[in-house]
Amino acid sequence: MTDDDDALIDVHTHDALIDVHTHVVPEDFPPYRGSVAGAPWPSMAPAEACHRHVMVSGKVYRTVSHHCWSCRLRLDDMAHRGVARQVLSPMPELLSPWLAPADGRALCRHLNDTIAAMVAQAPRAFTGLGAVPLQDVSLAIDELDRLLHRTGLAGVELPSHVNGMPLGDPQLRPFFEAAADWGAAIFVHPLRPADVHRLVGPPALEQVLAFPGEIGLAGASLITSGLLASLPGLRIALSHGGGTLALLLPRLRHARGGVPPVRDALAADPYDDARRLWIDDLVYDAATLRHLVAVFGADRVMAGSDYPFSIMDADPAASIDAPGFDAATRRALRGGNARRWLALDAGAGMGA
Amino acid sequence: MTDDDDALIDVHTHDALIDVHTHVVPEDFPPYRGSVAGAPWPSMAPAEACHRHVMVSGKVYRTVSHHCWSCRLRLDDMAHRGVARQVLSPMPELLSPWLAPADGRALCRHLNDTIAAMVAQAPRAFTGLGAVPLQDVSLAIDELDRLLHRTGLAGVELPSHVNGMPLGDPQLRPFFEAAADWGAAIFVHPLRPADVHRLVGPPALEQVLAFPGEIGLAGASLITSGLLASLPGLRIALSHGGGTLALLLPRLRHARGGVPPVRDALAADPYDDARRLWIDDLVYDAATLRHLVAVFGADRVMAGSDYPFSIMDADPAASIDAPGFDAATRRALRGGNARRWLALDAGAGMGA
Repeated sequence: MTDDDDALIDVHTHDALIDVHTHVVPEDFPPYRGSVAGAPWPSMAPAEACHRHVMVSGKVYRTVSHHCWSCRLRLDDMAHRGVARQVLSPMPELLSPWLAPADGRALCRHLNDTIAAMVAQAPRAFTGLGAVPLQDVSLAIDELDRLLHRTGLAGVELPSHVNGMPLGDPQLRPFFEAAADWGAAIFVHPLRPADVHRLVGPPALEQVLAFPGEIGLAGASLITSGLLASLPGLRIALSHGGGTLALLLPRLRHARGGVPPVRDALAADPYDDARRLWIDDLVYDAATLRHLVAVFGADRVMAGSDYPFSIMDADPAASIDAPGFDAATRRALRGGNARRWLALDAGAGMGA
Repeated sequence: MTDDDDALIDVHTHDALIDVHTHVVPEDFPPYRGSVAGAPWPSMAPAEACHRHVMVSGKVYRTVSHHCWSCRLRLDDMAHRGVARQVLSPMPELLSPWLAPADGRALCRHLNDTIAAMVAQAPRAFTGLGAVPLQDVSLAIDELDRLLHRTGLAGVELPSHVNGMPLGDPQLRPFFEAAADWGAAIFVHPLRPADVHRLVGPPALEQVLAFPGEIGLAGASLITSGLLASLPGLRIALSHGGGTLALLLPRLRHARGGVPPVRDALAADPYDDARRLWIDDLVYDAATLRHLVAVFGADRVMAGSDYPFSIMDADPAASIDAPGFDAATRRALRGGNARRWLALDAGAGMGA
């Protein structure tokens, strides 16, 4: 299928902007039905106009706006911002890998059903990514099967670690094998960064300053574990521009040349593996974005805004225009790369 | 004093390469004389030819070569690599902020006396940075006084955190006030990174992959705490190219625009504060170095090699040549910026 054929099939033009990094919070949660006393199961509480509090363990985790669950509000914003399609993924805290596995599965199913229902309201405007209880690999594979093959989601959002276990840990490999077999798109997002205790200032700095290292090391662990090289069918995207990974790659390449245990651990140039990843462009700076395109490739970078949270890039189209890329690169970043990551053109799949 | 005057005074030309990032391990340590049972006091043990084991708590921390303490070997290497001056600083693990304060002071004095003796052997080839027991701010100020005013060192190497306390923590401020008053050069180095548990692979990946985030957040804490803005006399350099800080600054600037608690915490554009710092150029990549010069300024980046450790940049002159800078920038990176950071031209100070 050529791009032109695709443009005829889809109402969107070939230049349509796909925002791969937008989050969903369900308007409500079912009551907790598990058996763990004091389990940090989320609930919603009323807040000021057009907002609700996400409550966890009796405290307000975050106050969020109706945009988190309202398709109508999202479609309005998309029209204003020139976004043709949003990729919906859960607010990362809701991935909750700290829950007991059965509780985690119940919460993930609620998230997945919520996101699938949003996609069903506007399947040409939304693509859905769900959640799996990665704290239990077997349950995670079962839920991946369900969300891909019964609810019509395109893949999953994964946290940057599972209760401290890096994503590249061999224990998680069976999950990634299933994801590769089934062609799931994977979006990796920072969650509870390890280095948050190094910050001085307001709690909001966690997202600003500690997220990049967290996602950078998650990406690095996919390389140093050999996972990316051994499962070439994986389609993994890192949020927040891959965080610090672009700065880590030259060090990894250098160490592979001069430090024997690193050389022994890396079968290939780490840049080769890094270019198997996709990243979003959420770096808030034209020069940095230009550098990322040089490092990861013009075929690997996608628009991502963090909609609708306070740190979001309010004009993702302008962010792609700012570095002055050529037309082909600009078009790839606006949507072509996301279409390949999501396999949007792979057939008449649900949600595409 | 003009550069030409300086060239007449110093045998080095105005283009002389100053390597600000080189480490020292003493050939030996005094026996432990403190009162803490099982204190992790270092000692040396024999190893294969031209090497010794640094022993801590009964285990080999690292096997190091004679280059760590031999001025003759260092001067030979400098001649081969075109390095006119090395800035000597302790192997970071030796900063040992986990020691009891009196033990920390005793170890720091041994380090400082060792490095001062090396500088005394070749004062035109070496500038020394010492150590202070930052786990006790009062003792640290006393030792800073001693090392600056009695042993002739130019400043100190600081760890990226003090037993988990970020460098920007207000408790450390009196130390920085003293350093600013006395004109001490400060070199910040990663130590025991917070996010080391996110790595998959050999232990050597700690330096390769976890150091950048650690030094980046140390630098960020100096900005978000307001320390740099409030003590403009501070002369602080971050090792390892400032780690991830260059990628954090756009996020911090963006959040200052859109996230109220971050806006309230930052009096000025974080780039303004970042450009009060110096950084070394140890990033192993021409494109990354070009980006760092654009972010921090051509007057803020200095040659740094990590000599004599396995991860070192074996040809620091070539690394400065690689990005194709103009002659003035190249000259600034080779030595002019380091001379200002170290105040080498500020007078007939010891060690200059």
